[in-house]
Amino acid sequence: MARAAECVGVITVYGFSPSGNCHKVRLLLEQLGRSYHWVETDSSTGATRTPDYLAKNANGKVPLVELDDGRVLAESNAILFWLAQDTAYLPTDAWDRAQALSWMFFEQYSHEPYVAVARFICGWTPADSPRRAGLAQLRERAHDALRVMETHLRAREWFTGSHYGIADIALFAYTDVAPHGGISLGAYPAIRDWLHRVRHTAGFVPMVDPDPRAAALIAQSA
Amino acid sequence: MARAAECVGVITVYGFSPSGNCHKVRLLLEQLGRSYHWVETDSSTGATRTPDYLAKNANGKVPLVELDDGRVLAESNAILFWLAQDTAYLPTDAWDRAQALSWMFFEQYSHEPYVAVARFICGWTPADSPRRAGLAQLRERAHDALRVMETHLRAREWFTGSHYGIADIALFAYTDVAPHGGISLGAYPAIRDWLHRVRHTAGFVPMVDPDPRAAALIAQSA
Repeated sequence: MARAAECVGVITVYGFSPSGNCHKVRLLLEQLGRSYHWVETDSSTGATRTPDYLAKNANGKVPLVELDDGRVLAESNAILFWLAQDTAYLPTDAWDRAQALSWMFFEQYSHEPYVAVARFICGWTPADSPRRAGLAQLRERAHDALRVMETHLRAREWFTGSHYGIADIALFAYTDVAPHGGISLGAYPAIRDWLHRVRHTAGFVPMVDPDPRAAALIAQSA
Repeated sequence: MARAAECVGVITVYGFSPSGNCHKVRLLLEQLGRSYHWVETDSSTGATRTPDYLAKNANGKVPLVELDDGRVLAESNAILFWLAQDTAYLPTDAWDRAQALSWMFFEQYSHEPYVAVARFICGWTPADSPRRAGLAQLRERAHDALRVMETHLRAREWFTGSHYGIADIALFAYTDVAPHGGISLGAYPAIRDWLHRVRHTAGFVPMVDPDPRAAALIAQSA
């Protein structure tokens, strides 16, 4: 119900629960213990392409954060940065903060377009989708990104500095479910150890499992 | 212990001059009046794939900033953020700063992979490259991104707040040269006005023109 004056500060998140980009935002909000209102918005069936939604975000993507006064913030990693300000999840040191951003831009440019898109094609497109012809190449580029992460994690516990933070959240989201896209993590022991550490951070919540239809498609796509 | 950006001495930038991602860094350094050492690194002919370079940046991309103590920072937009700290090019307000990041993530996810990649294919791959078969689709997605920008700029002078800043620099780099990729800006008067404003900011320097070989390929690709 309508957010009353005393609830100012409760943010609304438009998100699709099986999306790693959206889960990033939920995970940090849960770990921060922040109240939020989640509006399930199924980007796989056009809910981000309605005129109402496009009026909020002309780029037609989730997640999107909306404040009580109607202001909106798009892009999962910008939302993480904004939510994490003045918390332990964002490094205070300028260099470490820039490194966190560097990994987050790596995630959006060199990781998500392969790891997440392969998963989307496997679980959320028909078994005869022409997009499946691109899976082999996507998986190859996904492994390029995973090798970069493995190299970094061989000598380090977290992506920036000595603490878990938003760079870890950004990279965890789709790496943890890479096998849904037919991308094995078998060759990456340092990544698997890091995923385990992330799952044991305070307040961690897992992403929802794919629904039965998506799960069946994923099983067929392995 | 990390030092603030203004205390690190002369920085080295590994960059390929005709790359918009690299030009972003040069443009901000020039506008800040900062000293820097530019190491020309031709990513179109493998200079970012040598063992020496991969030891600096396992992801094999330019630009890369190196400090005199050997520490490195990758990803153009993370470099912009780091350089702009405590300057007028980075908003001080937390919400405006998050909006700047939002536009920069938009640039790397929804703009650069189409606008920059179409340009690269036109100018830096052979005239018979099989990659040219993808140009029509890249151009279509590029126009999607340009429409989002046009919508924003119809009512605003700059991408965030009331000042020119790093979000403008990030989006300017490849938008200004979109026609090299066969992407006309004819339908975007607000973008063209904004490009004009950016070109007239203090200390502005243009990107180098493509070399004669690339220029000839671009002319054939229109």
